[in-house]
Amino acid sequence: PKKPPPVESKLPCSLEELYSGSTRKMKISRTVVDANGRLEPETEILTIDVKPGWKKGTKITFPDKGNEQLNQLPADLVFVIDEKPHNFYKRDGNDLIVNHRVSLAEALAGTTVNLTTLDGRNLSIPVTDIVSPGYELVIAMEGMPIAKEPGNRGDLRIQFEVKFPTRLTQEQKSGLRRALGG
Amino acid sequence: PKKPPPVESKLPCSLEELYSGSTRKMKISRTVVDANGRLEPETEILTIDVKPGWKKGTKITFPDKGNEQLNQLPADLVFVIDEKPHNFYKRDGNDLIVNHRVSLAEALAGTTVNLTTLDGRNLSIPVTDIVSPGYELVIAMEGMPIAKEPGNRGDLRIQFEVKFPTRLTQEQKSGLRRALGG
Repeated sequence: PKKPPPVESKLPCSLEELYSGSTRKMKISRTVVDANGRLEPETEILTIDVKPGWKKGTKITFPDKGNEQLNQLPADLVFVIDEKPHNFYKRDGNDLIVNHRVSLAEALAGTTVNLTTLDGRNLSIPVTDIVSPGYELVIAMEGMPIAKEPGNRGDLRIQFEVKFPTRLTQEQKSGLRRALGG
Repeated sequence: PKKPPPVESKLPCSLEELYSGSTRKMKISRTVVDANGRLEPETEILTIDVKPGWKKGTKITFPDKGNEQLNQLPADLVFVIDEKPHNFYKRDGNDLIVNHRVSLAEALAGTTVNLTTLDGRNLSIPVTDIVSPGYELVIAMEGMPIAKEPGNRGDLRIQFEVKFPTRLTQEQKSGLRRALGG
């Protein structure tokens, strides 16, 4: 008998799930052939262990869990990991990227970046360098877990945007000139 | 008799030439068939009037000025305008783009941009707006002439780059905070 092609469905996961891992129970409905050769509906619960660091496109195959048909082998059932967009973090391979907007005063005189990680920890990162436009601060080991290297993680890259003032008084301008020596 | 395909050569022009127009004399060498049916070398001076606003790719055809061969019509000779890169200006269609780097003090407290146009005039452009990174100042009618609309010109677009200081003393930082109210 012939084996039909596998049946694929997407499994959308949040970035938090792909960061910490999760257990997903999937209820599937399918047709099976019973002992008398009759097609019967059947539901079943499948469990997927989403591993920390899994990427979009990762495939999990459940052999023979697709629909059955008379005179055919049962199809395989395949779930494909999909990544839901996050409000705050973007993933770039094993790295996480976050945009951070600072005022010009903060960019020049220093600031502290407060972030909540995908597993809910609070990070407080002092910035003492001058933040010029396009400045990127890289925090090692605060990116995504690397599925194939347990214990290892990518980088967290904080990309800064500097918000310039839209108007300045003459007095402010003189103060700035004085301070910058321009 | 058959007409061979036209012979093309590039005519590299400076942006100044394409701005103001110019007269180019091209000395060409070619083979002609004389009255006795013999192939003879010949040199000739061709004149090309480069019109203000001509673009890269503009073609000028000199009919029958290519090589001649026995039992064939003479080929046409075609010049294709090419644009030499300029040190300072970039062309974008009918617009000219120029990059201008300012210090942070100039960006915030004001500056004057001094430029020499492609026809040698000096422009002095006061900048009173705050120059945030990516700020573009557009000067109408200081771009390239538009060949098909005599008297009309594109824009000059001044794109600003803001150079941040690389280090600041504590005193400078306090002065900046005071002035910016941050």
